[in-house]
Amino acid sequence: MARFCEFKPLNENTLIEYIKTIPTLSSKLNNNFSDISIKEIGDGNLNLVFIVSNSDGSFIIKQALPYVRLIGESWKMTKERAYFESLALKQKGKLCPEHVPEVYHFDRVMSLIGMRYLEPPHIVLRNGLVAGVEYPLLAEHMSDFIAKTLFFSSLLFRSTNDHKRDVAEFCGNVELCRLTEQVIFSDPYKLSEHNHWTSPYLDRDAEAIREDNLLKLEIAELKSKFCERAQALLHADLHTSSVMVTRESTQIIDPEFAFYGPMGFDIGAFLGNLILAFFSQDGHVDQTNYRKAYKVWILKTIENTWNLFYYKFTTLWDNHRDGTGEAYLPEIYNNPEVQLLVQKKYMTDLFHDSLGFSAAKMIRRIVGVAHVGDFESITDAVKRATCEKQALDFAKMLLKERRKFEAISEVVSAITQV
Amino acid sequence: MARFCEFKPLNENTLIEYIKTIPTLSSKLNNNFSDISIKEIGDGNLNLVFIVSNSDGSFIIKQALPYVRLIGESWKMTKERAYFESLALKQKGKLCPEHVPEVYHFDRVMSLIGMRYLEPPHIVLRNGLVAGVEYPLLAEHMSDFIAKTLFFSSLLFRSTNDHKRDVAEFCGNVELCRLTEQVIFSDPYKLSEHNHWTSPYLDRDAEAIREDNLLKLEIAELKSKFCERAQALLHADLHTSSVMVTRESTQIIDPEFAFYGPMGFDIGAFLGNLILAFFSQDGHVDQTNYRKAYKVWILKTIENTWNLFYYKFTTLWDNHRDGTGEAYLPEIYNNPEVQLLVQKKYMTDLFHDSLGFSAAKMIRRIVGVAHVGDFESITDAVKRATCEKQALDFAKMLLKERRKFEAISEVVSAITQV
Repeated sequence: MARFCEFKPLNENTLIEYIKTIPTLSSKLNNNFSDISIKEIGDGNLNLVFIVSNSDGSFIIKQALPYVRLIGESWKMTKERAYFESLALKQKGKLCPEHVPEVYHFDRVMSLIGMRYLEPPHIVLRNGLVAGVEYPLLAEHMSDFIAKTLFFSSLLFRSTNDHKRDVAEFCGNVELCRLTEQVIFSDPYKLSEHNHWTSPYLDRDAEAIREDNLLKLEIAELKSKFCERAQALLHADLHTSSVMVTRESTQIIDPEFAFYGPMGFDIGAFLGNLILAFFSQDGHVDQTNYRKAYKVWILKTIENTWNLFYYKFTTLWDNHRDGTGEAYLPEIYNNPEVQLLVQKKYMTDLFHDSLGFSAAKMIRRIVGVAHVGDFESITDAVKRATCEKQALDFAKMLLKERRKFEAISEVVSAITQV
Repeated sequence: MARFCEFKPLNENTLIEYIKTIPTLSSKLNNNFSDISIKEIGDGNLNLVFIVSNSDGSFIIKQALPYVRLIGESWKMTKERAYFESLALKQKGKLCPEHVPEVYHFDRVMSLIGMRYLEPPHIVLRNGLVAGVEYPLLAEHMSDFIAKTLFFSSLLFRSTNDHKRDVAEFCGNVELCRLTEQVIFSDPYKLSEHNHWTSPYLDRDAEAIREDNLLKLEIAELKSKFCERAQALLHADLHTSSVMVTRESTQIIDPEFAFYGPMGFDIGAFLGNLILAFFSQDGHVDQTNYRKAYKVWILKTIENTWNLFYYKFTTLWDNHRDGTGEAYLPEIYNNPEVQLLVQKKYMTDLFHDSLGFSAAKMIRRIVGVAHVGDFESITDAVKRATCEKQALDFAKMLLKERRKFEAISEVVSAITQV
């Protein structure tokens, strides 16, 4: 029997042997391997993902590979990211179990996570957005996840001791942070072999980004926050393909980029990808369905996500004012006026950060290395470029003008005016 | 012979035994213990400090105690801070050997550093400022130290990998960070048993600080930067008693609070303590010496320190534009206009941070736990309170209005108008 005492990428056959050695996994199958089914479904950029199931049960095996799958073996990427992913899944799962799949098993040597299989009809949210499916609880669930995971890992709730200990640990996930720095904050603003866009239609737009000094000034400020500000434990890759949904369920997966960074990066990732979904809708229009109502639903979801987040986050803050959080000691911030003042400032700064990061996320998905299914599924290049250009122009405006917005309704209104 | 394999505080007798076991130290004395002289001079808040010398040589032994010496054994404080102090001395010494005393020996078990003895006529800068001594090279030297140690430990010069590794390591110095959070960012703004001030003259002023909502809003923003923003390796206690001087030499000591934090905290510490020195001068006035010229020299030193820092820091930046620093990649920031834009923004933000932290440092020295010799040496309480109130009022204005200042000359001008 294989002992799996050093890393090797698994396949359908060796994975069965592996599972047999891990009681917590084999027991999920009732130790019955006669009707086992194993299917590799990793369509992501970085990992092997297997669905393992039999008549008794199921789970997912996710194994990190030591390179970026999207690019190939030449772009090395530490498989230690699986350790940080499992750590983040566990910590966030504890804070928000309704929206994080349970981890059954982690193997650091094999860079392998065994976790809940999100059974059908769960699909990747992005695919649902491309198909035009409404998720009535999405804003409610996402705002819940974001508010809880950010609040409880910040100094609003935690002690400096706990904070610095965890910041230090997640500093170990540096290679994934570097990848983000490169693909979001650098590559789109310079010539890079990895960049691509809908050519020739967006050639001039891609060039304009590389020549836009004010845009570069703004992206530098956001990059500095990303690199230097340990505000909370982020998912750090919270786009619409990191969310699995049904009409009733919302599950957040793939936090392998997790680290302590600026809260707005998570909020912005989600909002920015919803805005991309909005601008892609006209590309999916056919004669029988103009998707007018669906675009309204997306905008409502953007607005509700922020507003519900705002409400839930500040409610958590109010409820834990007298707790262990070291940022605003109750003896100092002990009157309603100053409480209002500091909260308003905190939330305004967070709002502007979120808008900035959402813009950065949008830009990189149009002229950077990794694009999104929302646009990629538009086969007509002219139509796709038209949608992308609208999104790109909006994102550039948002990145530069974000401090002028005072409420999410103003942002939504600006989206509709493009 | 004592083996020193577990921590114990040393005294003049046991220290000799200790030195005999450490060749790098005993060789400094040419292994001659017959005419050895040991003198404990620790007048600081936290440590034992011995001068060890004989006819052949000399050094300092600094030993951390597991509590805050100023307060007593009831205020516990990890002696691991000696490890971070030795690390910071070595790293900063490498970057700026002219202004950092050499470390000869470090013993983690004993929390003990053996280092260069800064021989007379070196005195603590603060004492020189109280005595009215001009140091013509002070601004030149301090700007050198600050510019080099901050620039070379920031992402302007370093890679994300190096940065996150060192940030993680210095997260271990959390107890000293907590002490700063408490005594600078918290205690002065609330009732605390440790606070004191020149009573009854400043009673109302101390109370006014505890009731000033706008001041609390500003101090919260600075505290959040202190806790969350890992911009560079700070000395983190860079007041005028952490500097030893002669007319020709400037030596920075005592970086036991070192950690990765916002650059403005170091710059502000030094400038704020110079401003305190300025406002204390009228308390030292006697009939034969009005110290008018000395006050002008202090103001000139404040102005020169920032302006020279600005020049040296931006020159380092310009000279290393094409280096390994990951903050502003040359391929993106490759034209003079954008270079100017980002540098101006960076330096303006840093200026405002520095002013804010300098104000915070001033306030805590007047109504917090640890006061400064500049004021404490004024024996007439009315005179002392008058000086302190001027400094306090100026600091409050600076904390609230710092973003309105565009140049250090405007700050100096505001000081003279108090």
